[in-house]
Formats: sequence, structure tokens, C-alpha cells
Amino acid sequence: MHAENQPLHLRNVRLPQDEEPTDIHIADGRIRAIGGQSAPDPGDEEIDARGALLLPGFIDSHCHVDKTMWGGPWTAHTAGPDVADRIANERERRFDVGYPSGNRIRALLEQMSNSGTTHIRTHTDVDPDVGLRGMEEVAAAAAAMVGRIDVQQVAFPQQGVVTRPGTASLLRDAVEMGATAIGGVDPAGFDDDPIGQLKAIFGLACDLDSEIDIHLHDPGELGMWQVKAIIDWTRRTGMEGRVTISHAFCLGTTPAVEAAGVLDGLAETRISLTTAAVFSKPVLPVRTLFEAGINLGCGSDGIRDLWSPYGNGDMLERAMFVAYRNDLRRDEDIELALGAATYNGARILGLEAYGLEVGCAADMVLVPARNLAEAVVAHPQRALVVKNGRIIVNNFN
Amino acid sequence: MHAENQPLHLRNVRLPQDEEPTDIHIADGRIRAIGGQSAPDPGDEEIDARGALLLPGFIDSHCHVDKTMWGGPWTAHTAGPDVADRIANERERRFDVGYPSGNRIRALLEQMSNSGTTHIRTHTDVDPDVGLRGMEEVAAAAAAMVGRIDVQQVAFPQQGVVTRPGTASLLRDAVEMGATAIGGVDPAGFDDDPIGQLKAIFGLACDLDSEIDIHLHDPGELGMWQVKAIIDWTRRTGMEGRVTISHAFCLGTTPAVEAAGVLDGLAETRISLTTAAVFSKPVLPVRTLFEAGINLGCGSDGIRDLWSPYGNGDMLERAMFVAYRNDLRRDEDIELALGAATYNGARILGLEAYGLEVGCAADMVLVPARNLAEAVVAHPQRALVVKNGRIIVNNFN
Repeated sequence: MHAENQPLHLRNVRLPQDEEPTDIHIADGRIRAIGGQSAPDPGDEEIDARGALLLPGFIDSHCHVDKTMWGGPWTAHTAGPDVADRIANERERRFDVGYPSGNRIRALLEQMSNSGTTHIRTHTDVDPDVGLRGMEEVAAAAAAMVGRIDVQQVAFPQQGVVTRPGTASLLRDAVEMGATAIGGVDPAGFDDDPIGQLKAIFGLACDLDSEIDIHLHDPGELGMWQVKAIIDWTRRTGMEGRVTISHAFCLGTTPAVEAAGVLDGLAETRISLTTAAVFSKPVLPVRTLFEAGINLGCGSDGIRDLWSPYGNGDMLERAMFVAYRNDLRRDEDIELALGAATYNGARILGLEAYGLEVGCAADMVLVPARNLAEAVVAHPQRALVVKNGRIIVNNFN
Repeated sequence: MHAENQPLHLRNVRLPQDEEPTDIHIADGRIRAIGGQSAPDPGDEEIDARGALLLPGFIDSHCHVDKTMWGGPWTAHTAGPDVADRIANERERRFDVGYPSGNRIRALLEQMSNSGTTHIRTHTDVDPDVGLRGMEEVAAAAAAMVGRIDVQQVAFPQQGVVTRPGTASLLRDAVEMGATAIGGVDPAGFDDDPIGQLKAIFGLACDLDSEIDIHLHDPGELGMWQVKAIIDWTRRTGMEGRVTISHAFCLGTTPAVEAAGVLDGLAETRISLTTAAVFSKPVLPVRTLFEAGINLGCGSDGIRDLWSPYGNGDMLERAMFVAYRNDLRRDEDIELALGAATYNGARILGLEAYGLEVGCAADMVLVPARNLAEAVVAHPQRALVVKNGRIIVNNFN
């Protein structure tokens, strides 16, 4: 058993850029030294990593842990085929299936942590029926998991802002109780008042000094028009670098995103995007966005909830989905998908001291893989997970 | 250690259709009894399955084990973006990377077997450069794996039939040395002589009493025209029930397959289809095909080869891809994808005594899942794999 503050000395770790394995010294939750020179101190916990590949902790930058039924009874899916059907079905059934459940949220956070995720941004439903109970349950589960996984909440108006009176003031309350971002959902296609929703959420975010994260499922021209509107509102309100658009299926091919002429606008306003590569929905074009300097994160989206029974919180498997759906086959392209689940996500969450340098927080994962591309395509069992310098999973034993 | 012919008594197994667990008695490679009445005989190996779910052995009805680099060095992908680029790249590089390698084929067969696959149909390259060496290496690896996994080979003209003179006579030789089917590849879009290729392969198949399995990547109208031509040639040559079309991206949506008016033709000629749900290629519409009475199998396609670094031979994960890409969320729909990786594949391979009834071959997998839908979405580690009544994997220990 690794004691809470015991320094950790990892031998024979392979850094992604190096051929030869090296040693890593961890103390007080930070990476203190990299390199074979530093011998372990007496009292260090020593682990021989046997050449396993070192990755930074995974960042799930778009999930919905409040809704999960992880660890609960199997709940067969019943919703109709469209987003609006799923929202209506969820609204009807969610309290019957026990939403929101602190036990299930905590079970899922444990699962995520065990798979190497060290930070998440989760969208928590906020509406007049559930009020702030989802926020409270997630906050309580996160508190119970302190030191294992860091949780940021987005106050998410799943049922709309304009069409659900009372939601806007709850979003304000949610930020005041700790949400770091205000969410939005299909301002046109679902809320039926795009400018009304954007005005409300940008107003709140400016007022409360919070970030914004808008779920945009609307396809094609309707989606694209809203991307342009979000760029416009970001500029107008001085929110550059503080806005994320999630899903953005309308941008889901290289020709679509190029033809729309939005690449420059997204890059200039430093709007991030997130993708979960769900189902057969268009998946954001990883290489095109990278070359345009647009930050793309990656997340699980829903995990075993009333939207679908899929998902397991494994960000390495999710990066594989993103790479596979993008037809990324070359090593350097596959690595971009892993970047979405690590460094790019850290940028969205505003993490400081994230990475594999001396001085960074010791949030890391070791996997049996020869290189980053293999880590993604094989998404193997985690050999070691370390969070804040503390061992979460150790399969070297 | 389970002795070769030792009878096996599994307690507390859950059959997919039952709530309560039951016992299964296995002897001489067959399921001999299902139900709690039959007490274990002295000398039986007994295993407590602790309520794990029983599935039949998985059938990979479309793979390419001859090409694999499984267990070999990491080989970065270098091909261009199109099918023709990949064929040319493979032709250039394959001998340099050690193709065909019996050791790698065997390593992959072990991996497949360990994940619960009990039978495969693999497409082995046959062309004037490699000759029949791929066939021989696969046959030798399969012989070394007898009792663990059953291997059927398709003699596959990856480089074309018409455009690669000498291939047709090699296909004949391949069938004579044991291939059970003659392959084809994009008769129009790659071989540039659709009728020439169909005439050649249907002629050979009729002459040699073998099956046919055609890889059809050609999209849209060009693909659809070939589906109709294949239906026509199947009727003309009396090959009903003996032809498979693999990939068939052109049929990859419900509107496309319905609009083309080919559902009846495929059903009447009992042509099977296979899908691997690869990349972002259109995936065959599982429910539409099921309702039309068309048999759909599922396979891995290439696994870590010069076509792509992806794949692991896990058919439960592959069934999840097929279900996920089809947007199947209801239990009864997700079960159809599992059917593609089990019973439907068995139909393509012409297996007798396949299934979970008394008298069937004891080829089975136990997984920790509450029902078939959960087995697919969670694709958990296999608890037990049994092939021909012999324990291949036992994680109950």
C-alpha cells in the first residue's frame, strides 16, 4: 500500500519521445525529476515499469456523470430516434430510475479514475424540475473522490433556456455554487430562439466571469449558422478563449468545415471544440482542425444513461474511436487523437502544470505499448495510474 | 489443468433467455445436458460460473489473418488514402515486412481464440507474386491451432483477377488445397472488368463446387450496379445460398438499400453480407437487413497490417462497433449485432451443430453481463472460453 505522501520512484519508464527507458521521481504530488541520475531516496516507493509507455492523465472534456446509471440496474433504452425524443423521454423517466444518484456518480468516477482519467468536465442538468440537485450530487461525489479525479461542472440547460422559464436563474445559482461554465443546447433546433439563448448564456457568463460550453447537435446549414453566431457573440462579448462548442456535427467533415469559412473565426476567437465520435454522427476532422490551430478536446458524452446504454469512461478507447472514425492510420495522425484526450482537454479545463515535465502535477498513466499510436489502437489495460503523485491503479504487482 | 477429454460441468450459468442460472454438462466436445437435474459425474471438471452469461463461440466471418503483423514489430502506416493506394502499397512493402508469417498468423489466431472466437473465415491473398504461400502459412498455423479455433480460407485475389493474369489458375489451385470459397474484389472499380471478374470467379466456383465471397468497396451507384450484377450471376449459375458480399459500403444506409430495390433479390438468392463497421465507412443497416430476411455476418477485416494498424480480433468489441455505428440502443436491436457475430456468421461458414442447445458443439463463451445487450455494450473480459468442450480461457480461478 502506497502511503498518501510517500515519494514514488518509477524505474524503466518510456517517455513518448525517447527510445530508452528512464526514471521518474515523484514527490508532493509533482514530477520532481526525470532521468536516471536521480537515485531513489530511502523510503521511496519503487516501481519497475518494465519499459511501459508514459502518458499524461486523461482528460474527459465532455461527459454527463450526473445522468449515469453506472453500477445501478440494467435499464433498457426506450427513447425515440431524435434528440428531442431523447430529451422528452429523459424528462419523463429520469426520476423513476433514480436520477440524480450520488452512488452511481461516484461509481462512475471510480471507473473513470481506474481507467486513467484524472480530470473531467461534466455537464450537469439544471432545470426547474431537478433544480440544483444534480449539481449537489456531483459535487458531493467529487468531494468523496478528491485526490483521485478532479471534477469541473458545467451548468447545463438540457431542457432549453428560453423554452424552460426559470432555468436562467438556476444557471446563475449553479455558477455561484461552483460550476465553472454555463452550458447551452441547440439554440435554434431545440430551444427555437437562438438569439434568445445566446443572449441569456453570454450575458450570464460575462456577468459571472464563467466559461461557456454549448452542445450543438443541429446539422448542416442550421448548425453552421449557429457556429457563426457563436463566433460573433464570442467576439462581441470579449469571451475569446472561454467558449467551447461540443459535438458540432455540422463541422463533421473537412469539406464542410472548410467550405463554411469558419476555421479562421474559430481560431481567432480561440473557441475550442469537443467530440465524442458518437454513433454514426459526423466526427470532427482532427487533422484539419489541428492545422487550422483550433483546439479539439474529446469526451465520453453520456455513459450508460437514458440517452444510450453505451460508454465506459475509458478515454484511451474513446481516442481510438475518434482516430478510427477519422480514418487516421499514420502514427503522427493517430497521436493527434490522443492529444485531444490529453493536452487539448487540459487546455479546455484551464489546467495548470499539466504534462510530463519536471514540475508538472504527477497525473499519469503507464500502458504496455511501444508508442503513442499503439497505445491508442490497442487501448490496453492500464499498468499504472497515478493521480497527484498517489497510486490509483497498480497492475505491476 | 483441464484434461483433453475430461467432461466439464458448469454450474450457475445464465442462458440468455432465462432469469435463473442453470447447469450445463459437456462431454466429448458436445453440450450433453442443460438443466439442474443432471448432477456432475465423478471425474468431471466443475466450474462455478457465478451467474455469468452464456454466449455461443464467436464467428469472425471476414478477416485477413495472412496479412497480420500481430506479435511482430510496430510497422508505421504509409499508404495513401484510397483502396487502390493501399493495394499498391501492400504489394510494394509486404515481403519487406515479412509477409506471410506463420508465427504472426498463429499469434493472431491465439489472440482471437482467447477472446472467444471459435471459427473464422479468412481471406488469404493469392496472386502470382505470393503464389499459394499465404494459403500454406495459414493452413499450417490453423493445423497448429486445431481444437482451439477452426479456420476456413477464402482464396482472395486482392490484386485483381482480370488485371493480374495468372491469378485465376492460382485460385483454382487454392481451392484444390482447401479453400472453401473463391474471393473477388471490386470487379468494376478495381479490376476494371466487372463481367470479366464475375465470369471468372463464378465459373471457378461452379466448376470446383466452392462458395464465393466478393469484397465490394465501390460506393454509390457503381457499387449498387455490381450488387445487382452479383444477384444476377448468382441466379444464373444456381449459386443461391453460396455467395457472400463483404463490406458493400454502397448498401450502407437504410434509404440506400431500400431505394436500390435489392432487398428482395438478396433475400431470394440467399446472398449473405458481412460488415466490419470500419472507420467512417457506411455500415450495413442491421435492422433493415434483418427484417428483409438477409443474413448479415460480422468480421474484423484486417488486423494490424499494411492496410491499417487497428484491430484486435475481439468479436464482442466488433459487435459493439456494428451496433454503435447503427445507432442501435434498444436491447432487441443491440442483440441483432451480436447475432451477426454468432449465429449469422455460423450460417455463412456453413457450421452444423452450432449454438447453445443439447447436442451442439461445446463452443461457448461466458461473460460477466446481465443480458445480451450489456455483453455487447460493455464487451467485458471473457470469464471462460470453451472450444470443442475444452477450456481455452478460465478467469474464474
